[in-house]
Amino acid sequence: MFETAELGHHLSKTKYREIEPELRAQLLEAQFDLWKCGKFPVIILISGVRGAGKGETVNLLLEWMDPRHIHTHAFDNPTDEELARPPMWRYWRALPPKGRIGILFGSWYTAPIIDRVFGRIKEGDLAREIDEINHFERMLADEDALILKFWFHLGKKQQRKRLKVIESDPETRWRITQRDWDFFKKYDRFYRVSEDIVMQTSTGWAPWIVVEGKDSAYRSVTVGQALLQAMRKRLDAKPGGTSGWTVEAAPVAKPVDNLYILDTLDLTQALTKANYTRDLAKLQRRLALLTRHRRFTQRNVMCVFEGMDAAGKGGAIRRLTAALDARLYHTIPVAAPTDEEKAQPYLWRFWRHVPSKGRFTIFDRSWYGRVLVERIEGFCSEADWMRAYSEINEFEDQLSHNGTVVLKFWMQISKSEQLKRFNLRERTRFKQFKITDEDWRNREKWSEYQTAAADMIERTNAANAPWTLIESNDKYFARIKVLRTIVTAFERCLGGS
Amino acid sequence: MFETAELGHHLSKTKYREIEPELRAQLLEAQFDLWKCGKFPVIILISGVRGAGKGETVNLLLEWMDPRHIHTHAFDNPTDEELARPPMWRYWRALPPKGRIGILFGSWYTAPIIDRVFGRIKEGDLAREIDEINHFERMLADEDALILKFWFHLGKKQQRKRLKVIESDPETRWRITQRDWDFFKKYDRFYRVSEDIVMQTSTGWAPWIVVEGKDSAYRSVTVGQALLQAMRKRLDAKPGGTSGWTVEAAPVAKPVDNLYILDTLDLTQALTKANYTRDLAKLQRRLALLTRHRRFTQRNVMCVFEGMDAAGKGGAIRRLTAALDARLYHTIPVAAPTDEEKAQPYLWRFWRHVPSKGRFTIFDRSWYGRVLVERIEGFCSEADWMRAYSEINEFEDQLSHNGTVVLKFWMQISKSEQLKRFNLRERTRFKQFKITDEDWRNREKWSEYQTAAADMIERTNAANAPWTLIESNDKYFARIKVLRTIVTAFERCLGGS
Repeated sequence: MFETAELGHHLSKTKYREIEPELRAQLLEAQFDLWKCGKFPVIILISGVRGAGKGETVNLLLEWMDPRHIHTHAFDNPTDEELARPPMWRYWRALPPKGRIGILFGSWYTAPIIDRVFGRIKEGDLAREIDEINHFERMLADEDALILKFWFHLGKKQQRKRLKVIESDPETRWRITQRDWDFFKKYDRFYRVSEDIVMQTSTGWAPWIVVEGKDSAYRSVTVGQALLQAMRKRLDAKPGGTSGWTVEAAPVAKPVDNLYILDTLDLTQALTKANYTRDLAKLQRRLALLTRHRRFTQRNVMCVFEGMDAAGKGGAIRRLTAALDARLYHTIPVAAPTDEEKAQPYLWRFWRHVPSKGRFTIFDRSWYGRVLVERIEGFCSEADWMRAYSEINEFEDQLSHNGTVVLKFWMQISKSEQLKRFNLRERTRFKQFKITDEDWRNREKWSEYQTAAADMIERTNAANAPWTLIESNDKYFARIKVLRTIVTAFERCLGGS
Repeated sequence: MFETAELGHHLSKTKYREIEPELRAQLLEAQFDLWKCGKFPVIILISGVRGAGKGETVNLLLEWMDPRHIHTHAFDNPTDEELARPPMWRYWRALPPKGRIGILFGSWYTAPIIDRVFGRIKEGDLAREIDEINHFERMLADEDALILKFWFHLGKKQQRKRLKVIESDPETRWRITQRDWDFFKKYDRFYRVSEDIVMQTSTGWAPWIVVEGKDSAYRSVTVGQALLQAMRKRLDAKPGGTSGWTVEAAPVAKPVDNLYILDTLDLTQALTKANYTRDLAKLQRRLALLTRHRRFTQRNVMCVFEGMDAAGKGGAIRRLTAALDARLYHTIPVAAPTDEEKAQPYLWRFWRHVPSKGRFTIFDRSWYGRVLVERIEGFCSEADWMRAYSEINEFEDQLSHNGTVVLKFWMQISKSEQLKRFNLRERTRFKQFKITDEDWRNREKWSEYQTAAADMIERTNAANAPWTLIESNDKYFARIKVLRTIVTAFERCLGGS
C-alpha cells in the first residue's frame, strides 16, 4: 500500500500557483457551508513518518481556511486525568462538534504502532486494538462524522535525507532528536507494522489516504483536494441523504412462544421489615469497608439503574449511597442532553462522566435510553438504536478492561404495582413532583417497554458487565438484592485483603 | 469567633427524633423547588478541624435530600492538568449549575490555611489570597449563587478525644494517619490562622456559620436548618427580587470635553506593500523562534482581539497563527453561550478555555463582550456590566500571576472605512457570509460602541494585561503593529535565551 507513495510524486511550482488560489477559495467556502449547516463534524487524522510534512500541511490548511473554526489537537503523553481512564477517553474529549473541523495529530493510531514496533504488545493485542479502532470509527461514521485519514509516507532513503536536511539547518535543528534517529533505525519494522495497521483500518467508512511526503506542492494539493471533495460530496448530498454507511437493521425477532425473560421473574418475593433492617445494616457495613480496601484505589465501580417509572430506582440508589462516603461517589441522573451534548456522538455525554480510579459512579437511567425510550418514542431511527447495542457493548468492554466494575440493574415491577405506586404518589405531598403526565403516557406503552427491555437485556448482558434483574414489587426485597449483588461483585473484584 | 463553638452545644436524641422528619421533608421540598425554578445554584462549603463530623454531616444531607441532584467534590492533590493553570481553575470546574446543589469539601480555603500554618506563605501573601477569595465569592453572589460556608469546630481537648476514639475503633482506625497527629500538634496555630481567615472572609454575601462538631444531633440539625432557611428565603422571595447584594452602579462619567482616547488615534498611518511583506516575514520568523524557547514551556500567551465589525480582527489573527505551529495554539471564536455555559457565572465559559503551559490561545472577541455588546444591547443589567470590569481585572490578574502573557488588542477603524469594507464584502463572493443585517444594525450604534470601548480600555488597562490600540484603517499597518506588539512582549517575558 505504501509503494505508490515512493514513486517520486511531484507538482511543479507553476502548476501549484495555478491551482492554489481556487482550491483555497473553495475550501473556505466549504468550511463556511459546513458551519452554516451544522449537521456533521469533519475529523481529519494526520499520521505518518517523521519529516514527511505533517505539521507543514496542517499549518497550510489552517492558512487556507478559517483557523477560528478548526480545533487542532496534538496528543503528547497522557495527563494523569487521562491515565486514570480508558485509553479512548482522551480522544472522546477531543472530538469536534457538528459544524466544525477537528484535526488530530497522531490520534488513536500512534500508541498501537509504537507499542507493536517495540514489541510491547503481541500480535493478538494489536488485533484487538485494531478491532476497537474500526468499531470506534464506524460509530463516528454512523453518527454522520466525515472522517479523513491521511498517512504521510517517505521511502527509507528519502526519510534519511529529509532528517539530515532538517538537522543541518540551524533554524530547524531543534526538531530532530535522538529519538527520531532511534525510530529511523527501525524504519523497516515501522514500515511493516504501519502498513499492516493502515491496511486493516482502511475501511469503507474511514479509508486511509496515503500521501507521498517528499514534494510539498504535491502533498499540499493532494490533501487539500481530498478534503475539498469529501466535504463537497457530503454537503451537496440531497437533504435527508445519509452518510451512505447506514445499515438497514434486521428487525428484532420476537420469541414465537411470546415468552420473555421478564415474565419469568417471581415478583412475589418479599422480605419482612425486620429481615430488611438487619440485612441492610450488614450489607451497608460490608460495602463501607470495601471502599477502604487498598486495591479500590486502582478500580472503580459504575452502577446503572434502569426500570419502569416508579420501579424504585431512586430508593435503591439512596440505600446504596447511604453506605458510601460523599467524597467517593457521584450520581448522574440522566435527562435530556444539553446542546453541547447534542452536537456530539450519542455516547459522548456518558464518556464525559467516566470516573477516575477509587470512585463509585451511579447512573439513574443511562446510555440504555437509546434502546428504551428513544426506540419506543421514535427519537432516533431504527438503524441508530440497532447499532447502539454493539456500541454500548464496546463502551462497557473498554470500561471493564480498564478496571471498572460495571453492574447493571433492571428493576421489574408488575403493571398493577406501578398503578398502586402512581396513585400513592399523587396523594403524597413530597412525592407529587415524582409523577407527571409523561409517566401516565409511558404506562400506556407498557408492553412495548417490556419488549424493548427484554431485547436490551439479551443483547447487552456481557460477562464483564452483566445485567441483574431485580424483582421489585417488594421494595425491601429489591433494595437488598441490589446491595447484595454490588457487595458480592465488589468483593470478587478486590479479591482477598 | 470560635469560642461559641466550644460551649458544649447539645441536642437530645428525643428532640432530634422530633425535629428530623419535618426538617428532612422540607429540605427535600426546597431541593425540588430549586431544581424546578433553576434560577440559582446553591454552593455549600465544608471546612473545619479533623474529626468534627464534616463527612458525617454531608453524608446525612445526601441521605435527607435527593443525592442525584447534588454534586459533591473533594479536592485532593491537584492533577497535572490543574497544576498547569491558575489555582482557581479547579474550583471553577467544580461549580454546580443553576438549579443544583454543590457541596465542596475544603475548597479554596484549605491551601491558604495550611500554607500559612506551616509558614509557606507570608502574611502579605495571605492577605492577597483572602482578597481574591472575597472577590470570587462576591462574584458568585452577584451571579445569584446562594453560598453557605460551614466551619466545623472542636476545642483542643475535644479534638484529641475525638481522634483517639476514632483511632481506637478497628472500623474507623484507617481514618487517622500520622498527618492528623502532626496537624494536631499545631492545634493552636491552626486555631489562630483559621479564625483569622474565617473572620476576614465572613462577608455579608457569604458569611461563615461556625458549628460545634462534638454532638452529632446538634451539628446535623444546625446545618440542616441553616441550609433550609437560606434556600427557603431565596426561593420564596418575590419574583424579580435579587440576591440583595446587587449594587446600584454609579454611572460612567463622560469626559466633559467629550474627548475620547479612540478619537486621538492617527488612523492615516499606513505601510507600503513592500514594507509590509518584509516586516511580516521578519516578525513571523522571530515569533516562530520564540515559541521554541525553552522557557516557553513554563509560560503561555493569551491574545484578545476586539474591535468594530470589519476592523480586521480575522486578518490579524491569521497573520499571527501563520507563524505558529498548529499544535501550539487554539483559536476561540466567541459566539452565543451554550446552555451549559448559561447555567454558570459569566466568566465560566472563558475559564474553561484557559490553556496549559507552552500554548497560545487566541480569542476572537472575548469576555469583554459583557461591557461592549451586552452593555449596549441591554443583554445584562447595568449592575452586571459595571461589576464586570473588576471581575475581568481579577481574572486577568490571576492569569498573569500564573505566568500567562495577556495581550489585548482594540482594532480601531473609522466609520467611513467600515462602510467601504461592508460594501466590498457584499460584492465579494467569499466574503458575503461575513456581512449580516446585524452588522448593519451595530453600525447604527457606532458612537455607543466607541464610548463603551473607551470606558473598557480605561477601566481594564492593567500593567500585566495591557490594551494595545491598533490603528486599523490600513490593514498592513494594523497587522504589523499587532505582531510587533506580541513579539516584543513575548521576548520581554522570556528574557534572554
